[in-house]
Amino acid sequence: MTARPITFLSDYGLEDHFVGVCHGVIARICPEARVIDLTHGVPRHDVRAGALILRAALRYLPVGVHLAVVDPGVGGARRAIALRTEDGRLCVGPDNGLLSLMGSVTEAVTVEDSPFRLEPVSATFHGRDLFAPVAAHLAAGLALSDVGTPCDPAELVTLELPIARRVAGGIIAHALYVDHFGNVQLNVGRRIEDHQLALGREVELRTRSGRVLSSRVGRAFSDVPSGELLLYEDSDGLLALAVRDGSAAERLDLAVDDELQIRLP
Amino acid sequence: MTARPITFLSDYGLEDHFVGVCHGVIARICPEARVIDLTHGVPRHDVRAGALILRAALRYLPVGVHLAVVDPGVGGARRAIALRTEDGRLCVGPDNGLLSLMGSVTEAVTVEDSPFRLEPVSATFHGRDLFAPVAAHLAAGLALSDVGTPCDPAELVTLELPIARRVAGGIIAHALYVDHFGNVQLNVGRRIEDHQLALGREVELRTRSGRVLSSRVGRAFSDVPSGELLLYEDSDGLLALAVRDGSAAERLDLAVDDELQIRLP
Amino acid sequence: MTARPITFLSDYGLEDHFVGVCHGVIARICPEARVIDLTHGVPRHDVRAGALILRAALRYLPVGVHLAVVDPGVGGARRAIALRTEDGRLCVGPDNGLLSLMGSVTEAVTVEDSPFRLEPVSATFHGRDLFAPVAAHLAAGLALSDVGTPCDPAELVTLELPIARRVAGGIIAHALYVDHFGNVQLNVGRRIEDHQLALGREVELRTRSGRVLSSRVGRAFSDVPSGELLLYEDSDGLLALAVRDGSAAERLDLAVDDELQIRLP
Repeated sequence: MTARPITFLSDYGLEDHFVGVCHGVIARICPEARVIDLTHGVPRHDVRAGALILRAALRYLPVGVHLAVVDPGVGGARRAIALRTEDGRLCVGPDNGLLSLMGSVTEAVTVEDSPFRLEPVSATFHGRDLFAPVAAHLAAGLALSDVGTPCDPAELVTLELPIARRVAGGIIAHALYVDHFGNVQLNVGRRIEDHQLALGREVELRTRSGRVLSSRVGRAFSDVPSGELLLYEDSDGLLALAVRDGSAAERLDLAVDDELQIRLP
Repeated sequence: MTARPITFLSDYGLEDHFVGVCHGVIARICPEARVIDLTHGVPRHDVRAGALILRAALRYLPVGVHLAVVDPGVGGARRAIALRTEDGRLCVGPDNGLLSLMGSVTEAVTVEDSPFRLEPVSATFHGRDLFAPVAAHLAAGLALSDVGTPCDPAELVTLELPIARRVAGGIIAHALYVDHFGNVQLNVGRRIEDHQLALGREVELRTRSGRVLSSRVGRAFSDVPSGELLLYEDSDGLLALAVRDGSAAERLDLAVDDELQIRLP
Repeated sequence: MTARPITFLSDYGLEDHFVGVCHGVIARICPEARVIDLTHGVPRHDVRAGALILRAALRYLPVGVHLAVVDPGVGGARRAIALRTEDGRLCVGPDNGLLSLMGSVTEAVTVEDSPFRLEPVSATFHGRDLFAPVAAHLAAGLALSDVGTPCDPAELVTLELPIARRVAGGIIAHALYVDHFGNVQLNVGRRIEDHQLALGREVELRTRSGRVLSSRVGRAFSDVPSGELLLYEDSDGLLALAVRDGSAAERLDLAVDDELQIRLP
């Protein structure tokens, strides 16, 4: 039997050996599992950024085991879980909302006391001692009920996301995610046309601090000159702001959750 | 049948999930393909640096599919291509010169309209929607003609590289590539002996701004004390400058394409 | 026959293509070998940090070939070696102490003149030209005696590590390793209870410069409020200092090898 593929996301970074050690743990348990590093560059302890990345990436990842560790409460009271989503994905990680945007949960187990954890379990590195071994055994073909204790999916921690709204003459949106190029993804999900944001048009952006900037509506970075603002539908299907060859987050002084008003002139 | 190996170079960085998502796309299409990350640290939009890395790395990479995405013009008018080189490598990426140093092209196709692109194709992430799926299908054994529309190899975009020249008493060279240690590769390709640069000798370096520094000619970093300049033949067979335990780019205030005069005393 | 897995540690970083090229070399020689990147973020030329990472990671890595390259003396007089440890691991790298914490050596060979090195061997990139090909051939099943020339294990370079000591009222420890979160690992290896460092207790930390700070003794980061110091047993089983959501190295102004006095009040 072939192993299920594993995807792996964390905030461990690649400067230290934390990610490599988790790979080692997996390889010892299930050498034939393919492990895809989704990213280990989630900002430290930023559970929501991790959850949003998982949501955006999901349809491009093979159905398999999805290991995710952004875990500011490691060693504390938060639960450790594994779950199955309605489309058959098996997700493993802390119960802090990180896995909550991956789809409806049809089955869940807690894995703090999994028979497969590596003893002695450290208080600070559950990725290595708990989550990676559980993920590897799931990849090898075990069922959720083999690796943990059943729990009620309705009790899992969920995330609150800000909600955009239409107002007279515009949209009040929020910065949902900022990538490392400084592109700012907004929480506005429909297509540009649906908001009368016709391509080529100029819109006004009003930041929380009251600054007003204007931006072109376009499809691609090349639709504006270098250094100019662009409002576009990004590759996740959400409205986003970029500065060509620059950083929209800096230009607009926008951080995650900051409000931004888009005015249609 | 075994899948062809894939190598993957980009300027996506590893902080976000762009690289991981491309791996996911490949794994969904051709799970048995091995993917080697050549690097994702190409400076953003630096097509030439990407092309030079591919040229230098080529002989060390298995013959297979070479996916490369440094694509400042994504979503604009530039073409998307796949090609075969004379030694049987299959290269996939934007037609902006990135693939132009990988050898003579014997066959090329445009892939903007490939039947294997992922719909809806975003305007900003062709790595995911276009290049990765095309590369994965090539890895699975398809032919170039299966994944795109034939085009004339002679029409592909090429790169201009600066050319070094001998002058009385020395060489006028240019900084070709600066690695992240600050080692500066020059566009002088022959062996040190051929330029009367005997090992152990001192040479004078004159920068564009007129500063003059002296450097030892050596083989290895350990040939000079810590903090000292070294002129050596680098691992690509080109002349290069290093500062032991430091940065030659900083010491010489050299950026890519800057001229540097090497004087033989 | 299945290939042995390879783990790979270096200080090459991921910004350039050095790591990717070594992967390419391995894939050309032994395509079926799985390669696990332990980390490539070892601080440049920091042989001891690399050795400590290998020691800490070892029990989590599959027994196989362990390729390690932190090599400030590349191209100089230092030897290049491959060795077998008592538990059957095959290690490949420079003879500068990097491999010296991986266990007792039962057999060693020098590989400078290995028949498998890639000619011409550069003076600056032995990872590519020497160590990767040797590792790949070992992964493919060759014996140590096939890839190099026998040498005496007793002559291999070893490392000196600082030694902690008990003093009246406390412990004089040293910073052994600082990870990129700023957590500081100390050279005190027994469990917290053994030093009367009961959980929940406050201890006094006296730095070399004479500053005195107090820290809570705890199990996990969540045992202290954000911004507070924590003394805990880290995931390697050593005492360590962290600042929750911050950097203990900065707070304490501690660098590797710096002395730190822990006083039990």
